[in-house]
Parts: sequence; structure tokens; C-alpha cells
Amino acid sequence: MTHDDDTAWLRDHWLGHRRLTRTTVLAFPERDLLEYAAPGMRPFAAMVHEVASLTGPLVDGVVERSWTWPRDRGPVPDSKDGVLALLDAATERIERAWPSVTAARLREVDTPIPRRTETVLATLLYFIDNEIHHRGQGYVYLRSLGIEPPPFYRR
Amino acid sequence: MTHDDDTAWLRDHWLGHRRLTRTTVLAFPERDLLEYAAPGMRPFAAMVHEVASLTGPLVDGVVERSWTWPRDRGPVPDSKDGVLALLDAATERIERAWPSVTAARLREVDTPIPRRTETVLATLLYFIDNEIHHRGQGYVYLRSLGIEPPPFYRR
Repeated sequence: MTHDDDTAWLRDHWLGHRRLTRTTVLAFPERDLLEYAAPGMRPFAAMVHEVASLTGPLVDGVVERSWTWPRDRGPVPDSKDGVLALLDAATERIERAWPSVTAARLREVDTPIPRRTETVLATLLYFIDNEIHHRGQGYVYLRSLGIEPPPFYRR
Repeated sequence: MTHDDDTAWLRDHWLGHRRLTRTTVLAFPERDLLEYAAPGMRPFAAMVHEVASLTGPLVDGVVERSWTWPRDRGPVPDSKDGVLALLDAATERIERAWPSVTAARLREVDTPIPRRTETVLATLLYFIDNEIHHRGQGYVYLRSLGIEPPPFYRR
């Protein structure tokens, strides 16, 4: 929001969170990443899989004005490298799509999901917030495992 | 970001998160709010106390261009009503200050904390993200206590 035509602040905000999410994945021992979970919750690998799987459809919807959410997100990777590869591929989609994301598009009101009618900016923040939310849960898992999570301010 | 002079999107974003944080506090039994914690972590009451205590200095810094962070945040309330009162008072400070928050101010680069030089927008998002992060941790506590957290999309 440096000026009205600027969308770089949002890309930087998102990519900063992506870097911290990646660092959080790295902090997990592989087995705990894939298996450790609080009661009634998923392992952190499954949360990152959700975040990564939604990124492509999300940026496609922003750029192409057509929203298609996959019914089947595919399996959660069974290795730490697999989780990282999925996350990195998703992050590349943000970087590739971003030059097509205009400030005007961020201001447009759209309906990405039935009964959610809002600006494209609000939709993007919603999904970034979902990543922050789940990563915060990953921090509890790490602490419960006796592992110090990465500093929240480091991006 | 409906137009360049609009800051309502950010107020709505923040207040929406505040409502969900409040609902999350309400979902806790009082004793668990004040005492339950994951290993090496604080109870959710202490996290909400942090979020609420930082709100006043944050909005003052945005509006008055002068940043003063209290050394002593005061005690964590010892009741659920006390936590809610602190949170509500903090939320009122957002509402009261907001008419003075201009889009131009959001674009200004400032130094709210030594070695953090960034736009005021980035600072506000940082603290909102901190609230999302800790609330996500509260969700793990609730699940661990066998309590269904409020839906993330409800604001």
C-alpha cells in the first residue's frame, strides 16, 4: 500500500509468512511432522498440505476470475522433503502469478466460495490468516515436543 | 482498500479477528483459560492479556507518531470476566482511534520498535497476525480439553 497501484506489500506479507512456515516445517523431526498431533487434530504435515493445496486454486482465482476448488487435494506427503516440495511449489505459484495481480483486482468484489462475497484482498488475507493460524498450532506441537519454534518475527 | 483513501478494510479485518478472539475466550472454561497450557507455554489468558495490552500502545503510536511500549503490562486477570474486560477495553481503543487513521499514515514508514523500520500498515498487520497466531494456539488448547473451537471463518 505504498501507493494505490502497489500490491507488493501484500506479496511481501504473504511470502514472509511462507518463509516462516517453511522454517517451522524444518524445525520438526520428520516423524513428528508426519504423525504428531494434539487430540482431535491433524499432524502439522496435513495442515501444511492444506495450505499448499489451496494456494494454486487461490492464485488462479485471483488472476483468472474463475474459482475452482479441488474436491480431492491428493494425499499428504509421507516425507518431510515431500511436504517442503509441495510448499515450495505452491509458493512459486504465488511468485509466478503476482505480476498479474493488480491493485484494481484486489479491490474487486468477487465470490470465491458460495456465500463469501468480499474483496479479493479480503479473500487473500483470509487464506494467509489460515496459514498463520495453523502455523501457530504447529508451534504448540513443537513446544510439546520440547523443540523451540522459530521466532515469530523472523520472516 | 476499496479506494486509496480507505482504511475501513483494515479496521474490519482487525475487528473481525477481535470478535473471533473473544468467542475463543468464551469457549474456555474459566479455570482452563487461566491455568491450562502446553509444556513451555502460557495459558490462553496470558496470551490474550499480551494481545490486549499491546493494543493501546499500538494505536497510540499509529495516531500520535510516538511509540511507547510499557515495560510492565500489569498482571494477567484472574477471572474470565477480567480477561474479557481487558480485551473489550482494548478493542474500544481501536474503534475510538480509527477515525484518525488515514491511508496516508498507513503508507508512512516508521520505526515502532528499534530495528523494525516498515510501513505503519506492516506494523498493524504484524500485531494482528500475532493475535491470529496465539488464537490458533488457543484452538489447540481447546481441542486438547475436548472442546470444539469456534469456526475460523466466523467473525
